[in-house]
Amino acid sequence: MDKIRIEEMIRSLGRLNTKNMYNNDFFLTWEKTLDELKGTFAVADTLRAMRERNISTRIFDSGLGISLFRDQSTRTRFSYASACNMLGLEEQVLDESKSQVAHGETIRETANMISFMADVIGIRDDMYIGKGHTYMKEVADSVEAGYRDGVLEQRPTLVNLQCDIDHPTQSMSDALHLINHFGGIENLKGKKIAMSWAYSPSYGKPLSVPQGIVGLMTRFGAEVHLAHPKGYEIMPEVEEVAGINAERSGGKFVKSNSMAEAFRDADIVYPKSWAPFAAMEKRTNLYADGDDAGIAALEKDLLAQNAKHMDWETTEELMATTKNGKALYMHCLPADITDVSCKQGEVAASVFERYRVPMYKEASYKPYIIAAMIFLAKVRNPSEKLMELLVKEAKRAL
Amino acid sequence: MDKIRIEEMIRSLGRLNTKNMYNNDFFLTWEKTLDELKGTFAVADTLRAMRERNISTRIFDSGLGISLFRDQSTRTRFSYASACNMLGLEEQVLDESKSQVAHGETIRETANMISFMADVIGIRDDMYIGKGHTYMKEVADSVEAGYRDGVLEQRPTLVNLQCDIDHPTQSMSDALHLINHFGGIENLKGKKIAMSWAYSPSYGKPLSVPQGIVGLMTRFGAEVHLAHPKGYEIMPEVEEVAGINAERSGGKFVKSNSMAEAFRDADIVYPKSWAPFAAMEKRTNLYADGDDAGIAALEKDLLAQNAKHMDWETTEELMATTKNGKALYMHCLPADITDVSCKQGEVAASVFERYRVPMYKEASYKPYIIAAMIFLAKVRNPSEKLMELLVKEAKRAL
Amino acid sequence: MDKIRIEEMIRSLGRLNTKNMYNNDFFLTWEKTLDELKGTFAVADTLRAMRERNISTRIFDSGLGISLFRDQSTRTRFSYASACNMLGLEEQVLDESKSQVAHGETIRETANMISFMADVIGIRDDMYIGKGHTYMKEVADSVEAGYRDGVLEQRPTLVNLQCDIDHPTQSMSDALHLINHFGGIENLKGKKIAMSWAYSPSYGKPLSVPQGIVGLMTRFGAEVHLAHPKGYEIMPEVEEVAGINAERSGGKFVKSNSMAEAFRDADIVYPKSWAPFAAMEKRTNLYADGDDAGIAALEKDLLAQNAKHMDWETTEELMATTKNGKALYMHCLPADITDVSCKQGEVAASVFERYRVPMYKEASYKPYIIAAMIFLAKVRNPSEKLMELLVKEAKRAL
Repeated sequence: MDKIRIEEMIRSLGRLNTKNMYNNDFFLTWEKTLDELKGTFAVADTLRAMRERNISTRIFDSGLGISLFRDQSTRTRFSYASACNMLGLEEQVLDESKSQVAHGETIRETANMISFMADVIGIRDDMYIGKGHTYMKEVADSVEAGYRDGVLEQRPTLVNLQCDIDHPTQSMSDALHLINHFGGIENLKGKKIAMSWAYSPSYGKPLSVPQGIVGLMTRFGAEVHLAHPKGYEIMPEVEEVAGINAERSGGKFVKSNSMAEAFRDADIVYPKSWAPFAAMEKRTNLYADGDDAGIAALEKDLLAQNAKHMDWETTEELMATTKNGKALYMHCLPADITDVSCKQGEVAASVFERYRVPMYKEASYKPYIIAAMIFLAKVRNPSEKLMELLVKEAKRAL
Repeated sequence: MDKIRIEEMIRSLGRLNTKNMYNNDFFLTWEKTLDELKGTFAVADTLRAMRERNISTRIFDSGLGISLFRDQSTRTRFSYASACNMLGLEEQVLDESKSQVAHGETIRETANMISFMADVIGIRDDMYIGKGHTYMKEVADSVEAGYRDGVLEQRPTLVNLQCDIDHPTQSMSDALHLINHFGGIENLKGKKIAMSWAYSPSYGKPLSVPQGIVGLMTRFGAEVHLAHPKGYEIMPEVEEVAGINAERSGGKFVKSNSMAEAFRDADIVYPKSWAPFAAMEKRTNLYADGDDAGIAALEKDLLAQNAKHMDWETTEELMATTKNGKALYMHCLPADITDVSCKQGEVAASVFERYRVPMYKEASYKPYIIAAMIFLAKVRNPSEKLMELLVKEAKRAL
Repeated sequence: MDKIRIEEMIRSLGRLNTKNMYNNDFFLTWEKTLDELKGTFAVADTLRAMRERNISTRIFDSGLGISLFRDQSTRTRFSYASACNMLGLEEQVLDESKSQVAHGETIRETANMISFMADVIGIRDDMYIGKGHTYMKEVADSVEAGYRDGVLEQRPTLVNLQCDIDHPTQSMSDALHLINHFGGIENLKGKKIAMSWAYSPSYGKPLSVPQGIVGLMTRFGAEVHLAHPKGYEIMPEVEEVAGINAERSGGKFVKSNSMAEAFRDADIVYPKSWAPFAAMEKRTNLYADGDDAGIAALEKDLLAQNAKHMDWETTEELMATTKNGKALYMHCLPADITDVSCKQGEVAASVFERYRVPMYKEASYKPYIIAAMIFLAKVRNPSEKLMELLVKEAKRAL
């Protein structure tokens, strides 16, 4: 991208109202205005364009980016570390097993103790229904209080790296991929997006991806079709959000129990497995009660339930029914690929292979989306600051 | 703090003799002169004031800060990482389980192998009596030799992040909190400080905090009252140090077996649990012998011994007996809080809650204290260099 | 080293053809031309000289250096972290146990997902014959494709931190130690280097060190003598490489089953233990089959086989037979030292002790060698860039 295009992007950012993001957190996309979402995309695209032109995007000469992963992660972990690094922050991992958190510290105490020089805290806590989001809120409130009380020199921004409700860094990366693929956010209007359940031989995959997708894609006037077998419902609150979003944006939010229906004439398909909300709620309670036998029984039941829906696979036949047989296939990765990573899974190997490069590009937006979330929370005049960096043109690699 | 106050602080630092700290280590506070302690406070305060004014405190464009934690840690770990980061050093953790240290390397060898680009090494090794301090000395001697022999390009400074004898980054942070709370180091003269044992349902807490407190607070002319049940004696060598300190500084060092006596009219109270020195010595030998049965028996005995002193709790009644009922309550955190983190512990919930913010502030000095220790070991003319940073006024966050 | 000497070094680098190293990887020393090896030494020496004069060697204002260690490591791990740091890159460790790699991701996918901001990837994978090198190639091919496809903004360089075939960061550090010890690469011509097996009470030590040494030292016209008991053969492909190298360089590559023969009149001795190639191949297959009983039986056999050769020890008597009784003793560390780290091992304590400082210096080249490998892969005009850094003279420690 040439400098003139970058300047245009920065100027368009300047026309958006993102003031409220300053010194604020990023929990759920539906708490953000459309301007704020657009601003995040604009900053992400600008940071990427600058880095690709070897222009430094550092806005910190020092400072820490804390991360806390309560679940395994590769791409989000490295995306977060990359985002911190490109802004000038050093990542520091809070490993709960090595800290005194296990010794019974309160959330408020830990949150303050790790934040003396933290500009941002990124948390993944997606395993237990009703817990992850609540935990993040408590961390954010704790450091807000710490800042107000003069304990902390700065107020760390909280970035939700996946909770039980939303996975905003994923859905925003997915959306930016779509925006760039279709040549503009306005081109998502009227597009049919199939967010479909797909069969997986594993169990307990978080709901935050499908919830994040229907909660976000309904903002842009698209027709979002959520399909899953009966019993695989997502959180009703998020369905409600999606419905309201669709109404406001002039799009649609449709539900069905048919993968075929969802795929028919779709422009975009996002088939992936997830666990039923009700089962995850049950599991959360079983964990709270320490009921190991109950957990084992539930897992067995859920795998048996999954096995009834092995026909929910993204086959070539199904792909052929999409718009011109050429819908854009998406996945948050890693996928369960039939005959590759398992005997039968979410997607046929030939379909996955054909879309490998676009999917990797989809993933490649995440570091920039996270960096944009941090940038907008830390910089009072984001368009001014970006222009300053562009004009200064300090080299990233000398 | 305005720039004029900062300049004054830097000038007062210039009048102190801290020469001997250059290219030196920080093991025990009582090995340092009063000027050196004051210099550490002055640098810590200055670094904090500069960071709060968004002035960069980086004195390294690259370099490593090695850490080795042989015990769990949250606040010291993050404080150390923060200190390194604000000076421009990247933290590198030596995880003994992942290194070849387990393969029988000598201390001398490991110390050199991790130090090729290390400007500082921070170690926590507080579990075994007679071991931690000795280990740190050996590491420091090893890298000193490595530097002399031309193996290392620079001489890494060793910072004691808690050993079996002292916990200088904690006691110095505590002291700086007191200095700022009471409006100057001279105002600690004559203050009564109760360093008291308190009941905890857990066992084996290190002695380095009470030892560090009585070894340091007696330097400033305070009346330090050490109270604990019979059998909970600290190291006799440290008691001796405290006695000599008190005599020289015009303060007092008093011992008793009464929490009530210690608290009466105290200006400052620091009640926390610790294990008896004699028991810790015994445990060290049992570990050395690999006597698991002996260790289990000792733990049982010690918990039973603790349980005889459940009345050593920091209650509201006890707090009411302090100077005007308003002594400053301190704790190194995390605390065992009655009805919060345990059924009965070191402190009543209402007392803890009332002092939560001051305690967090107390903790918040640690990154700056550690940074000051590193700064004074690495910079030949600390006041000159600080003035240079202040005048240059490079931004920390652009 | 004074600035004039550094300038001379940089100018001599300018006369070497290292073009092909740009945007390339470092797998095996024998894939590199002599100019490329000499260029690596020159950059390493220059970077060291500059750092010793407190001149910044940063060529990145941000960026990541990814590391993946599939075997324990201390010195290579810290050397890699140091190399990244001195160039301005932040290390990010890929811990396979904490990532979703375990969830069945392909190498191609993982390689791309961790590389969005990676300038370099360092991998140690030395345990299984026929695996490590192949794995690294696949990672390099994957990120090459990712770069070509526009997924990655830059092409990360792969640095082999030890594979099943070669250990180039070790052998190159060893070589640079020899070059500086003997006053120039030309002085290695005709020197007798004994790469000898030595007894160790442990089992399964990788072959990549002896293979790396005979594969590299034969490039410089030296007489390389490889000695081991029968049954401890190294990979035949590497022996072939060593033979061809020796012929071309005017040196010699001699094999024997006699430690005494290898040591006689040697200028340099490098005695260390390794596992037989055939046994390691067998073990790799047993691991692949999950044959635990077979692995245990093999280990027992190998230890018994080792025990037949306890006389392969580097004694004072043996050292006395070397050139003037003063051969330079080398080791990659850690060594099995008789009566120190084991009852009987690779080397007598008095021999080891006498060469301790030279061995530490030998190790101290590794961070600079790794930094040089990265530098040459990342900088289009290395001599120009070094001169620029030298002239600019930005301070490393302010």
